[in-house]
Amino acid sequence: MRPNSKLSIISFAVLIFVLTATVAGAQDPLPSWNDGPDKKAIVAFVGDVTRENSPNYVTPSERVAAFDNDGTLWAEQPMYFQALFTFDRVKALAPQHPEWKDKEPFASLLRGDMKGVFAGGEKSIAELMMVTHAGTTTVEFEQIVEDWITTAKHPKTGRLYTEMVYQPMLELLAYLRANGFKTYIVSGGGVEFMRPWVEKVYGIPPEQVIGSSIKTKFDLRDGKPVLVRLPEINFVDDGAGKPVGIQMQIGRRPLAAFGNSDGDLQMLQWTTAGSGPRFGLIVHHTDADREWAYDRKSPIGKLDKALDEAPVKGWTVVDMKKDWKWIYPFETR
Amino acid sequence: MRPNSKLSIISFAVLIFVLTATVAGAQDPLPSWNDGPDKKAIVAFVGDVTRENSPNYVTPSERVAAFDNDGTLWAEQPMYFQALFTFDRVKALAPQHPEWKDKEPFASLLRGDMKGVFAGGEKSIAELMMVTHAGTTTVEFEQIVEDWITTAKHPKTGRLYTEMVYQPMLELLAYLRANGFKTYIVSGGGVEFMRPWVEKVYGIPPEQVIGSSIKTKFDLRDGKPVLVRLPEINFVDDGAGKPVGIQMQIGRRPLAAFGNSDGDLQMLQWTTAGSGPRFGLIVHHTDADREWAYDRKSPIGKLDKALDEAPVKGWTVVDMKKDWKWIYPFETR
Repeated sequence: MRPNSKLSIISFAVLIFVLTATVAGAQDPLPSWNDGPDKKAIVAFVGDVTRENSPNYVTPSERVAAFDNDGTLWAEQPMYFQALFTFDRVKALAPQHPEWKDKEPFASLLRGDMKGVFAGGEKSIAELMMVTHAGTTTVEFEQIVEDWITTAKHPKTGRLYTEMVYQPMLELLAYLRANGFKTYIVSGGGVEFMRPWVEKVYGIPPEQVIGSSIKTKFDLRDGKPVLVRLPEINFVDDGAGKPVGIQMQIGRRPLAAFGNSDGDLQMLQWTTAGSGPRFGLIVHHTDADREWAYDRKSPIGKLDKALDEAPVKGWTVVDMKKDWKWIYPFETR
Repeated sequence: MRPNSKLSIISFAVLIFVLTATVAGAQDPLPSWNDGPDKKAIVAFVGDVTRENSPNYVTPSERVAAFDNDGTLWAEQPMYFQALFTFDRVKALAPQHPEWKDKEPFASLLRGDMKGVFAGGEKSIAELMMVTHAGTTTVEFEQIVEDWITTAKHPKTGRLYTEMVYQPMLELLAYLRANGFKTYIVSGGGVEFMRPWVEKVYGIPPEQVIGSSIKTKFDLRDGKPVLVRLPEINFVDDGAGKPVGIQMQIGRRPLAAFGNSDGDLQMLQWTTAGSGPRFGLIVHHTDADREWAYDRKSPIGKLDKALDEAPVKGWTVVDMKKDWKWIYPFETR
């Protein structure tokens, strides 16, 4: 082989590599999003803050994206999935609590009378929450969630709850991470209810989950340290609590925030009020056939004030019916 | 040039590269640590959890190391530096508060009578803390800390406080990160007092700082969202609070914990009670000449119970005088 031909082979190999990389780079990172202004806005924002020569370039350590969970990353109808977990737990614990047969709201729940459960208002729901979420150690509770999330089925679809995540949002999470973003969950849901499964399902590690919490207490049991979950609210990561939770745990203002309800309003305000380029997005549930359609009047995931503020603030409002090719990952198979 | 000689040049270049990499790898990553069992224990632990063929190999995402700050990463005598910040702030704010001249503990502090300040006990200190730490927005407070930390000098050394960090611990932080660890601060100090400068000084980003905090409240001022700092304790990240703070913010048990006082006892217990290889280390202040010598009887950084428990639990106790070549970075220049 002449030196020249060796050089040609090397050049050819380099060319192939460059071409492959270019083609891979040109592949659509958001294939489940229909082309249109919303998809275009996402891609334009990411390009704007990540292109090295962009006047709006943001250093990778500052690229924080905050995602609500219920109704933004996974479904939330007919009720928040954590409420369904709570009801399942009451039923599972009932044999150890014969007194519940005569005590509200337990009695109604065990009879399957949901109207009776809700008749007691917030106090009843809080009581059910505390009975099912407190009293264990953190390690025990993690196992309880793990067991439930891998077996319990959604009452309408018959699917595992972790199958009812939104395929276009999974792609968006991966796309942001591929562009140097740290993706965080900022949810009204319980932080310890999410952590056992979100890494596997969303690729979000436990330290990037912010949520509501109950207090815990350090204790030594036979010399072995444990953290015991107490029946006392520690923090409510919803509405005006979301920017507080973000500051408490991240200490930086996100570049981008993604939500679906008025519970995300202050997070969107806080995020997009930062200097430089910011991005706000609302998932609008408009697809009664493939998912659920609800907004201003819904008791779950009410979207009213934030929907009015979106055009004023320049937030992107995703129309699930129009913008998303598929809703759930299982539809794509 | 014959093909053969070209090949030789390539081989030679590869050889040089491999040699350089090997030499770099063999360089001491902890040059300020004297050789001995303590340094050996650190290196053995890191090797044990990071060598791919080790039976104790730990995946990088699980490599979490928790560091106390006061007395572990920087000095804490004659008083916690945040207390000195507090006193400086009272003096700076005094012109706006003529009433302080006749009101304790302010009057004593402004006269320079520290005995008078401490005569009021915890209540007095708490009052000084709240007056100087609350009432601003988070953005304003960040600027106040930034201004102080870049100008204020230590009463004994005349150095910037950020110069009074421990060189051997800076090397340890870098060494752990080079081995895939996420390094966290878990301090009794205020989280918002640390975040403005720890990234520059320790290489630890704000989202990896856990500390004590006061409550904040989201508000709109002329339509602009702010977080206002309230004069109310939110969380005390000390003693039994440290494992609670770790679980709240990280959601994983650390592999390794580093402290210097009884305020770190429960963090050390919680960390080293985990399954698999764990590492606990206590910095023992034994060097009255180069730093300060104190332990069981000290009102600041009291080290008593944890010192007794260390040999029982197999925690490494660093003897600053014996183990550290230098204390502060400026000594190495």
